Amino acid sequence: MQRKSGMNIGVIGSGSWATAMIKMLSDNQQTKQIYWWVRKEADVEHIRRYKHNPSYLSSVAVDFEDEFVTSDLKQVFAQSNIIVLNTPAAYLKSVLEPLSASDFAGKVIVSAIKGIVPGENMVVGDYLAHVYQVPLEQIVVVGGPCHAEEVSSERLSYLTIASRTSDHAQSVASLLETRYIKTILSSDIIGIEYAAVLKNIFALAGGICHGLGFGDNFQAVLVSNAIREIDYFVEALDPSDRDINHSAYLGDLLVTAYSQFSRNRTFGAMIGKGYSVKSAQVEMNMVAEGYYASACIQSIIAEHQLDMPICQTVYQILYQNGQPMQEIKKLAEKLT
Amino acid sequence: MQRKSGMNIGVIGSGSWATAMIKMLSDNQQTKQIYWWVRKEADVEHIRRYKHNPSYLSSVAVDFEDEFVTSDLKQVFAQSNIIVLNTPAAYLKSVLEPLSASDFAGKVIVSAIKGIVPGENMVVGDYLAHVYQVPLEQIVVVGGPCHAEEVSSERLSYLTIASRTSDHAQSVASLLETRYIKTILSSDIIGIEYAAVLKNIFALAGGICHGLGFGDNFQAVLVSNAIREIDYFVEALDPSDRDINHSAYLGDLLVTAYSQFSRNRTFGAMIGKGYSVKSAQVEMNMVAEGYYASACIQSIIAEHQLDMPICQTVYQILYQNGQPMQEIKKLAEKLT
Repeated sequence: MQRKSGMNIGVIGSGSWATAMIKMLSDNQQTKQIYWWVRKEADVEHIRRYKHNPSYLSSVAVDFEDEFVTSDLKQVFAQSNIIVLNTPAAYLKSVLEPLSASDFAGKVIVSAIKGIVPGENMVVGDYLAHVYQVPLEQIVVVGGPCHAEEVSSERLSYLTIASRTSDHAQSVASLLETRYIKTILSSDIIGIEYAAVLKNIFALAGGICHGLGFGDNFQAVLVSNAIREIDYFVEALDPSDRDINHSAYLGDLLVTAYSQFSRNRTFGAMIGKGYSVKSAQVEMNMVAEGYYASACIQSIIAEHQLDMPICQTVYQILYQNGQPMQEIKKLAEKLT
Repeated sequence: MQRKSGMNIGVIGSGSWATAMIKMLSDNQQTKQIYWWVRKEADVEHIRRYKHNPSYLSSVAVDFEDEFVTSDLKQVFAQSNIIVLNTPAAYLKSVLEPLSASDFAGKVIVSAIKGIVPGENMVVGDYLAHVYQVPLEQIVVVGGPCHAEEVSSERLSYLTIASRTSDHAQSVASLLETRYIKTILSSDIIGIEYAAVLKNIFALAGGICHGLGFGDNFQAVLVSNAIREIDYFVEALDPSDRDINHSAYLGDLLVTAYSQFSRNRTFGAMIGKGYSVKSAQVEMNMVAEGYYASACIQSIIAEHQLDMPICQTVYQILYQNGQPMQEIKKLAEKLT
């Protein structure tokens, strides 16, 4: 694998969203070389042979030459000037473990993760800055609303590309735009990451309520309270003049809270229907990121003494043995 | 029918929402007498005999004594100190035609209509003030998010009760609260009515896009743009410090745009799938209020020179023979 001149992009991860990202980058017409890091050697072999991801978004054809799909992380980093991090947040820390600050030096780091690094209670940008000395100016965040499944079927979708360096946002946007992907630029890397993390908790809450038998009327009140909790939270942590009703915040919440594809909603619905957290996790083949996010956000809530009724209710149910119906009834008294 | 002392409430209309209102008022424990005006004598007879509305929300038992269900509008007005208007907006003008200002004098008038009076381009409160000299201080607006269908199954729902006279808002709220209905008070009678009107247009837009094959990702962007259009519109017409993300605005939009029960969404989906406006109307047994609202709002947009891309797109499609796919593609360029 030789390093090519020009634009070299390394995509780290092979879940649904990473595979959707591979598809967008491939369909985009700009000249570039894509390197794809896939953790399991068996998956690498499958992709090389059959040109499809065996486990996620398998309908997407990924027509890579063999050498550009690999399980060698260091090599992908070495070849690329833009790195797209696209693992589940829960695994990021262990995936990046073999690396050091020098591997990141000079690169534009794109976070498509939308999660908090467990145990660290930091969004990805903050974590990379802290551990790998990546300057926040080199970070680009890719926000939704965008379900991977709809990218695979080429339904018109919008991505929000955020960076404090507008040139970086612009370059990444120009690599992702296709016939079916429009991009919106932003500078709010922290707010968009936090909003993306929080929405998973709210989708989980919506799922719990649905599982308990609450209807659409209640769901609408829940979501309208949820966006106000997001606004309050990001203003507390990173005050700015953002409009919380832009697509990257409200849109991302909506697509997750209302879509049939949301794994967080599905996970919540199982909890609402009486599954234990453990058995719901066993039943699902995907990580419900809202589960991990709930614990991380709870720490931040405690640290900053915030008042986040929905998030706190979800935490009670998932981690403190709160009885779902009882907790949601208490919550219902606080909604406006 | 004798006028009783104490609280006498006249409900005008017999559609789904009026029937849900009858159920809430009946289930509420406060002492009161309810009078129900039903337009068709045959329906009055059916309700008296079978204790169910023959046409809408027929599952709801309405256990009225015969004398309290009537097609005599003047009498219901004469008996009541609180009047709940609950006809489709499109029929309000003709229903009220036999009445004059004196029939309204001294009464609290509750609008549960959520519509604009066609040909007048006024929300109900403004219309009553203009034509029947009802002071705005006597008006109470009942806002959502609340599908009638979920009231009939007693799913927990929230109503927003707005009046410039907080005592009136409080009295009406205390008449509607039940085990399954919570109320939120507000003073924003104009903003809540306009938001409730606009949401029907956006639900219709969402339906059109769904009918055309757009997915959840696009829908989320559409709705996040829609709430910003609502905010912009009500601020232009009636500036105040309202939070547009409260349940009565955003919640009402969500329940309509995302629910399976929304007739506006269904109507829009038919248009998106290629039905003409006329054939979609014939196919449905209900009035899609967004259709009428679109023309009214378009006049206000023109008069105030507002920029409302989604509303203007819906108007083009419904009234100006705009080709749905072409118009939505133009709209997609403007969304953020």
